[in-house]
Parts: sequence; structure tokens; C-alpha cells
Amino acid sequence: MRTGAALSVGLEPAPDYLPRGYEPSIEGYEAFLRGVIGATADIAAAFKFNLAFFESLGSAGWAMLERVRSAIPAEAFVIADAKRGDIGTTAKHYARALFEHLGADAATVNPLMGRDSAEPFLAYGDKATYFLALTSNPGAGDFLMRDGLYREIVERVRAWGCEHRNAGIVVGATRGEKVAEVRAFAGEMAMLVPGVGAQGGDLETTCAAARSDGSPGGGYLIHVTRGVLPGKDDKGDALEIVRRKAMEWRDRIAKAGGGAG
Amino acid sequence: MRTGAALSVGLEPAPDYLPRGYEPSIEGYEAFLRGVIGATADIAAAFKFNLAFFESLGSAGWAMLERVRSAIPAEAFVIADAKRGDIGTTAKHYARALFEHLGADAATVNPLMGRDSAEPFLAYGDKATYFLALTSNPGAGDFLMRDGLYREIVERVRAWGCEHRNAGIVVGATRGEKVAEVRAFAGEMAMLVPGVGAQGGDLETTCAAARSDGSPGGGYLIHVTRGVLPGKDDKGDALEIVRRKAMEWRDRIAKAGGGAG
Repeated sequence: MRTGAALSVGLEPAPDYLPRGYEPSIEGYEAFLRGVIGATADIAAAFKFNLAFFESLGSAGWAMLERVRSAIPAEAFVIADAKRGDIGTTAKHYARALFEHLGADAATVNPLMGRDSAEPFLAYGDKATYFLALTSNPGAGDFLMRDGLYREIVERVRAWGCEHRNAGIVVGATRGEKVAEVRAFAGEMAMLVPGVGAQGGDLETTCAAARSDGSPGGGYLIHVTRGVLPGKDDKGDALEIVRRKAMEWRDRIAKAGGGAG
Repeated sequence: MRTGAALSVGLEPAPDYLPRGYEPSIEGYEAFLRGVIGATADIAAAFKFNLAFFESLGSAGWAMLERVRSAIPAEAFVIADAKRGDIGTTAKHYARALFEHLGADAATVNPLMGRDSAEPFLAYGDKATYFLALTSNPGAGDFLMRDGLYREIVERVRAWGCEHRNAGIVVGATRGEKVAEVRAFAGEMAMLVPGVGAQGGDLETTCAAARSDGSPGGGYLIHVTRGVLPGKDDKGDALEIVRRKAMEWRDRIAKAGGGAG
């Protein structure tokens, strides 16, 4: 993993995210997502699939997910954002679905059910598993921020990942003051940081907070989906806009995050 | 929902669960799962799909899930055990995938991210959403049982479900003493109770604990997967064995759980 910051670009077949000129059909989504990959493959360090949007299209959506995944160049880091969490053979099958069948390099996992729900993912020593630690939604106050549960999660995840050094955490950028606090006890764990851009987190503040002082493995991915998509006032070719915005994000991240990128 | 106890039968295309005579292929799993439905449709009150096993087969697994789901008689209650949990439009798309595309009557959801991760599911007023509250795995000790988090989850879920009275909870049977405790502050919420049978929870103790004294809506489903499958010493037709075992479970549940079943 990286010591600095790098850009993760989202791949989500959502009707609201589809630019003019693309139909909200399997074919239209696939054409657009392939276009995004082509327009940003030399800019993005990672691509993140949000599985919900594919699943809402049923088995045809899953088949499209498989095709789009195979269109990503081999050197890119592919994250399956699935937030699965279960136990025993069920957890093993979720890990197999994401790491083997889909061929993702990383997955997001919900840690609520504890260590035995994490182990089937962490057993893939050459894959990364990002555990939900502190999210940026209002509901994070219900349980994650209750009695410092998020701190407990980070500390346990850090211990779980010791063997293969392949555990990471998801920390929402919109709680800027919390990102620095989490980094203080996350050590060198990799972070996946959504919530800059459309959700309002400040990039420079987030990068300063998420940085692990260059310790090995302590890189972080700044994830952007809507931030690279054409806005309603953007004129011109949608994929050229995506490319330009991705370059802007990459450059801002490099400036704010330093490190090996 | 029911006031008494009833049987939920699991549908899981797992190689270890496949009786002799069925190949571990899409066709073999489909034939067996259709056979289980045919053999138990007049016995089971519910069928529960464990999505992990289908997903580990990729889009072909999802297509098989869709076909098997359509083979379930209209009067059965269909649960999509997916344990999803996310926020915003992502949560909406997971709910749409399970309730609309797959046509499930109920889904399991992970409540970790709080209220706004629950609302897109609960907004389907005629569908049931079961939230993970207390699971029966060792890792439940990591977070769920820390400082009574499971109690907090149950209390909040109960409040979230007020509008449509469609929230339920998942409570593992192997923590028998805990099932009664949870029922005490769960009020009349419906419970989905896995963990009897192969996982070792005692049925009679569980039913006595899970019962809500007949208050409206306070029914519970006793979920069995391996318990209805042929064991290695069982001789004869696999589906006849499944039917016989399902009848035994139904009868034991009716005796132990009483109520409207």
C-alpha cells in the first residue's frame, strides 16, 4: 500500500449520475462506466464499485459488473464496496464472491459481528479489507459514536490485520476533526476516505488529518464519485469533463497529501 | 406478522449442503433448491435465501436466485438474508434490489451505520426488515455485547419501526438466556431466530424465551438450514428426508412455540 494520498474513482450505475447522451439501461450504464475507466485509467490509483447500484439491476446488473470489472487495466487497484458482514461459511462465500469471482483487490466490510466475520476476508493475505470505522452520515451518531465504539473498532481491526498487514478502515471525510483522531490510534493502517467533494468534506483538511507521517502502509485513498461527473452547468463531452475533473482531483490530492501517491 | 412460532427453511447453494445425486453446478444447485421448495412448501412458513452462496457463483448465481425465487408459492414469506447496510442512495438501491427486483417480503439489514441506513428499507411499509441485534458467533463479544450495544440496537430499531410496524430483529438462539432478555425490551417486534439445530441452540428453551405472550406482531421465525438436510447417515431419497425433517421441526416448533404459527 501507499504512504501518500491517491485518488479513487467511483463506478456507480445510478440514473442520477448518468450524463446526457446515455440511456439508463444496462447498455447505457456499461458504455458510460467503460468510458469513465478509459478517461481516468492513467489518473486514478483505484476504482471503487458500489455494488448496490449493480444489484438493483438484478442478475443483468451483476453480469454488467463482471464485464466492466474486466475492462479495468491490470495495474489499477479495484475495490468492491459491498459492506458485507456475516459469519462462518457465509462470510467465506462473500469473500470468495468479491475476491475470487469478481477479482477485486479490496473489499469493504461491516465489522459489527466481530472477529470471525472479518477473518474470512483477512485470510486473503494479498487482498485488502477496509472495515467501516466512522462514517459521515447523521446515523453514525446512533451507534458508531456511542461510547467511542469507532475507536474500539479501529483498535480491534488493527489487531486483526497484524498477520498479513492487510486491514484498513473507512473513515468519512466530513468529520474532519475525527479523521485526525482516528489516524492517531490507527497507526499505519490504510484508509479509504469518502466524503470529500459532493458530501462537503474539505480536501486539504482531510489530507492533513489522514496522513500517517509516511509510515509504511499508511497510505490513504481519497474517494470521489460525483466529484468527477459532469454537473448540470458543464458543457461539452461528458468523458472529457470526467477526465479533466479527475486530473484536478489528482493534482489537488498530490499537493495536499504528498507522499508517494 | 404472526403471534406464535413458525418454521423458516434455508435456501443455500453450498457444496457442503448438497446431497448425493446433485452436482455442485448452477444446474445441480437449482434442481436441489427447487426440490426443497417443492418438498416443504406446505410445511414452511418462510423461506430464507442466504445471498452469499448465490453471489459466490457470480451473475449466473444471481440469475439462478431469481429463478428459484420465482418458484416459491405466492403464500410463502420470502426472506432475503443479505445483511446489507449503507446510506443514502446506496441504501435505497440495496432495498430496491431485494424488495423490488428480487421480490422478497423481508430482508436482513446491518444497523451499524444508524437510522439513515435503516430508513430506505423501512420505507417499504408492506415489507419486513430484520436488523441484526445479537448474533450467536464468538465475535458477538467484540462489539454487540460490549457495553450493551445489542440492547441499544433493539431499542432504537423498535423506535425506527413505529411508523409501519415493520421492523424486526435477528437474535441467535445459541445465547438462550439472552433471547429472553432481548424479548423483554423488544416488545412485540418480530424475531428471526437462527441457531437452533446444527448450531446447538435448544428449541424448547428458545421458543419459551422468544415468545411475546401473544401480543400482536410478536411472532418469531425459527430458522433452520442444515437441520432439514440429509445427514451422512440418512438413507433414502434426499427430498423425502428434507420433507420429513421439516415436518418434525414444524411440529416441535408448534408444540414449543404455541401461538398462531
